[in-house]
Amino acid sequence: MSLMNDLVIDKQRASRLPMAAAWCIKLSLMFVLMASGALQASELSLWQGDAKARITGFINAVSDPKSPSYVAPAERVAVIDNNGTMWAEQPASPQLLFAMAQAQNMVNENPELLNQPVFKAANNNDLETLRSQGITGLLQLFIATHVGLPIAEFEARVSRWIATAKNPKTNQLHTDMTYLPMLELLALLRKHDFDIWLATSGSAGFVRAWSEQVYAIPPDRVIASELRTEYRVLNGRPSLIHMPEVGFINSKGNKVVAINERIGRRPILAIGNSDHDIAMLEWTTSGEGKRLGILIHHTDSKREFAYDKDAYAATLDEGLATAKQQDWLVVDMKQDWTQVFKWQ
Amino acid sequence: MSLMNDLVIDKQRASRLPMAAAWCIKLSLMFVLMASGALQASELSLWQGDAKARITGFINAVSDPKSPSYVAPAERVAVIDNNGTMWAEQPASPQLLFAMAQAQNMVNENPELLNQPVFKAANNNDLETLRSQGITGLLQLFIATHVGLPIAEFEARVSRWIATAKNPKTNQLHTDMTYLPMLELLALLRKHDFDIWLATSGSAGFVRAWSEQVYAIPPDRVIASELRTEYRVLNGRPSLIHMPEVGFINSKGNKVVAINERIGRRPILAIGNSDHDIAMLEWTTSGEGKRLGILIHHTDSKREFAYDKDAYAATLDEGLATAKQQDWLVVDMKQDWTQVFKWQ
Repeated sequence: MSLMNDLVIDKQRASRLPMAAAWCIKLSLMFVLMASGALQASELSLWQGDAKARITGFINAVSDPKSPSYVAPAERVAVIDNNGTMWAEQPASPQLLFAMAQAQNMVNENPELLNQPVFKAANNNDLETLRSQGITGLLQLFIATHVGLPIAEFEARVSRWIATAKNPKTNQLHTDMTYLPMLELLALLRKHDFDIWLATSGSAGFVRAWSEQVYAIPPDRVIASELRTEYRVLNGRPSLIHMPEVGFINSKGNKVVAINERIGRRPILAIGNSDHDIAMLEWTTSGEGKRLGILIHHTDSKREFAYDKDAYAATLDEGLATAKQQDWLVVDMKQDWTQVFKWQ
Repeated sequence: MSLMNDLVIDKQRASRLPMAAAWCIKLSLMFVLMASGALQASELSLWQGDAKARITGFINAVSDPKSPSYVAPAERVAVIDNNGTMWAEQPASPQLLFAMAQAQNMVNENPELLNQPVFKAANNNDLETLRSQGITGLLQLFIATHVGLPIAEFEARVSRWIATAKNPKTNQLHTDMTYLPMLELLALLRKHDFDIWLATSGSAGFVRAWSEQVYAIPPDRVIASELRTEYRVLNGRPSLIHMPEVGFINSKGNKVVAINERIGRRPILAIGNSDHDIAMLEWTTSGEGKRLGILIHHTDSKREFAYDKDAYAATLDEGLATAKQQDWLVVDMKQDWTQVFKWQ
């Protein structure tokens, strides 16, 4: 598929013209529009209905210098959640699957670890038992599998893993479990000079290892959770080391704290998919001027996964009620997206 | 003075030509060089000697695609300390003077505060007594004068203060106590596509209120200390509030931790002026490829202030020894800068 479909003239009209002529017109118009800086937000070829209309309406309203809602480019800040918003988080977040894979390597080297329930469950790929250990058990697994290496080596380890690791339900690479309509939206936001930040509950070292390659979001635009980190000179070599202790969990109200600390401006666009993102959307949309909050609602059991209230993590419940009160856009994946993944 | 002096042809040669012709040649050459993208790092008109040569040599070496030390623009990250590196920190850092001014306002409203030694000292502009209270006393003053307001209102208060506040020794605005050679260096780094980050022990809310206007460094490029901050909905209004508790002190090894957390890349250029910057320079210069660490040495008692080993805060002692071992550049303000402030 091409993200450029429907860019300027619709496919039906184009198909009535000889192919070459249609392309020629298409390209010429593109260049004229690009040169004039007046490229319209009509490129969301994988979106439809009200969701598409509302997003393109918002982008045009804040980008058009003649619009009463115009926002200067430096203030066009967008914050976007990762798990469940940019890529699939079912049956488990890729970072949890990474932690389980690391735990399996550790068990191979030290079978005594199997005496610990979280290692045993991780070794058996037993998500249910793992989750029954609660947040304490999950944090124990995260910490045990994320500490001890200098940060650069840890990121290299993530890079190697993500190059081949697959979603256990779809057997597709995690990096191919990214939502194509969201990648299309990122591209459109960039064309309209938005400054895009990823605001994820994942850890910085994990997400930065692939965010630039997969989302074109560079390391300095990743706002993430952190293990406490220390600077140490080890054998004469300056090093940053993850400590076995949570430093910061980038979720709920903490996302707002981190967004302010990192960006220093209030965003005008926030996109999330769970109750953990309510504070971020609330902070974003309560500023002055035109703003937009978006929640991605997982409604498509065929093409992706359907879950909200009863999801293990990342529940979407209170968020749906708040969205109504606050006039946030709830994206119905089944209705509003014509395609979800690139391999479909 | 003009930052463009010495840009292309030296002043002596230019003075032998009629003025108009000299300017015409100068401008034409500038445009040719700018258009070709080959602008050389020779614009440090306020720098001289080895320091100038070493800095321009470094910038050219990492920016010239034909250089064996070439560094891609995305990796051209520079981290720069603020107090004593970008602007004067004597007789006290502007943020301490701001805290004292706020304390005076608080005393006017509540004279009982004078029972507390730090408020009494602040009210008397008595730096010596204030400092004799040690770090605990200073933190008490900082916290008392920096909490309680929503962050946006706090920044507005700083903006009002800095618009008129003056250095008590020179009677110049703090914003005019910025080092002109450093502003010139920032401009040159930008021309060579460096990504410039301020790494300051000051607090984010204080520094961001003026850093864009004074240094052209936007809020998201300010790495700073933070009081612990909480997100709260107050009377239905989403708010960020400083808590009366230190969250993070951006100094020494912590600067490296924050640089990694915020930038996610190792800088290739670090500039500081005290022992608190040693870790930042160490981390920067121990990476692979061409790198540069710079310490600004306050040697000029006439045009600025002369201090190092015996300074109250921001001592420069171990740093001078480390600079020798590590081949960092020590800038002698008296020798290496032909001008310090714009009003001189």
